[in-house]
Amino acid sequence: MYPQFKDGFARLFAACAGLRIVVIGHARPDGDCIGSQVALCRLLRARGVDAVCCNPDPVPRRIAFVVADTPFVTLEAALAESREAIFVDCADRKRASAPFADAFPAPLGNIDHHLSNPGYARINLVDTASAAGAEIIAGLAQDAGLAFDSVTAMALYVGISTDTGQFRFAATTERTFRLAAALVAAGAEPARAGFELYEQETFGKLQLLQRFLASLETCADGRVCIGLLPEGIYAETGTNTEDAEGLVDHARSIAGVEIGALIEVRDGAIKGSLRAKDASFRVDQVAALFHGGGHACAAGLNVKDESLDTFLPRLRAALVARVEAVQAARASLSP
Amino acid sequence: MYPQFKDGFARLFAACAGLRIVVIGHARPDGDCIGSQVALCRLLRARGVDAVCCNPDPVPRRIAFVVADTPFVTLEAALAESREAIFVDCADRKRASAPFADAFPAPLGNIDHHLSNPGYARINLVDTASAAGAEIIAGLAQDAGLAFDSVTAMALYVGISTDTGQFRFAATTERTFRLAAALVAAGAEPARAGFELYEQETFGKLQLLQRFLASLETCADGRVCIGLLPEGIYAETGTNTEDAEGLVDHARSIAGVEIGALIEVRDGAIKGSLRAKDASFRVDQVAALFHGGGHACAAGLNVKDESLDTFLPRLRAALVARVEAVQAARASLSP
Repeated sequence: MYPQFKDGFARLFAACAGLRIVVIGHARPDGDCIGSQVALCRLLRARGVDAVCCNPDPVPRRIAFVVADTPFVTLEAALAESREAIFVDCADRKRASAPFADAFPAPLGNIDHHLSNPGYARINLVDTASAAGAEIIAGLAQDAGLAFDSVTAMALYVGISTDTGQFRFAATTERTFRLAAALVAAGAEPARAGFELYEQETFGKLQLLQRFLASLETCADGRVCIGLLPEGIYAETGTNTEDAEGLVDHARSIAGVEIGALIEVRDGAIKGSLRAKDASFRVDQVAALFHGGGHACAAGLNVKDESLDTFLPRLRAALVARVEAVQAARASLSP
Repeated sequence: MYPQFKDGFARLFAACAGLRIVVIGHARPDGDCIGSQVALCRLLRARGVDAVCCNPDPVPRRIAFVVADTPFVTLEAALAESREAIFVDCADRKRASAPFADAFPAPLGNIDHHLSNPGYARINLVDTASAAGAEIIAGLAQDAGLAFDSVTAMALYVGISTDTGQFRFAATTERTFRLAAALVAAGAEPARAGFELYEQETFGKLQLLQRFLASLETCADGRVCIGLLPEGIYAETGTNTEDAEGLVDHARSIAGVEIGALIEVRDGAIKGSLRAKDASFRVDQVAALFHGGGHACAAGLNVKDESLDTFLPRLRAALVARVEAVQAARASLSP
């Protein structure tokens, strides 16, 4: 699955022998982040390595079912035990928050699939063609002939399933499905994952969706669709930021829309998610204009010390410019 | 994949030699129906058989991309050419409407995965453990070593993907994923399928969802959730009743909710959809109190000459009584 990483993966596991390891994920962890952490931690523990997981934010309620008895510790505990760090699903160390980046300036490992990952660790296993961090870990483990327990299989399955939007985003390949088959054979349960992920919504989360849908507006002749979550909406609806995950996909789902956006004011900053239908829109580059980054099709931004009144026109202009530039480039390529 | 059908499939293909074949699907065709028809028709044509497809209803716009150059004909044309019939994804012949059932009293073939399929053809390839009719056809073709063209691969992929709710309903197995991998290798494009199926929504459809979500209310301590679509909403949002399909699932998706309902006033009557998380709630019996019926988990009702003011309290009372009766029955069974 990953012949290019065969040596690197072997070196990583060999380097872990005798060390205490902490597997680190990013802030506001999603299914791929937690799934990748749980799986790598368990694969290491199965080889006798003292490994634990650590995150800057708690495991979201809806993903908690993948954790089982996998140990999660605080940053303080990880530091007190002099653990060496392996980052997963983090384009850079700061994705795990500044305290984590400061605590681990030269991590042992970095397993990731983000385009902007510069390779910041001693051993970097970064494949941007993979649909999920969990796909890389599943493929590496399969290549190495490691056995999965059913919790590991389910964690990797959930990582792949969520990061591919249920097997439909662009990076979904034959390899993705072959690994999913192997994970189901090893004990992953698609129906249980589906129930836990999609049939355990809260009333507040549906209110959040309703408010987001009510705010949708299009620009650039219907090629850009932007929705807002008003400040204080989480308290009002009894929800939290994890409940907003996936909302932005509704903005992108409309026929003709090329880029969907979700904008919110939270913790004194403007935060946003950008989602493109096609990698040619490089929303990571648009996000970079607003102190953000990510993937070509999915990126985030974070703007401090600005009001929505000035930010929104700037964002609209940047998005309109982007869809027009891509359209112009396409037109120039047509015969 | 299907060793039990190896002989039957070979006999079916052998029987088709020299015949004109029509591959028939059911009324209001879905992705699995059209995908199965297109694939079987193309597999037969690739073996030199004069095969066409025929449906009682047109191919829905959303699924039209799987058809490509596969021939679809009218029932009249199929009869004029004395075609022998193979039914796919039809639990019985009447699922393809009465005229089709009358026209083909003794069909040549029957490939299906529905529990109630009695085996009504000369050659029956019915496997109720399969997630989709397309899964059976993909497995049979793979077992037989038939080559798929990319249109056939995509048709089968769409059948499997839609009938498993994007790989998450209970029948999704290792085999499902292995076949998906083989189909992608043969040219199926998950991202394009996802785009056509889920990224071509209309703004009006999202408005419909928004209005439905805004109306949700729970009763029976959160075990029943009812939402309304106001009269005239279709005209107001530029949508039609097809766009309301699936809305009721949002009411059911909430944690703790056992029965979700969608109620609307349309064509001078109150119409409703009931969806239960579990077959023990027998919403078909609740619907029967309101001139309706259906299945244990999914039923519809239709009430004339009554206002919402009197109907809604009656419906709530019936649904509350049902969830309480089921809860009481469960309590009496617990040790």
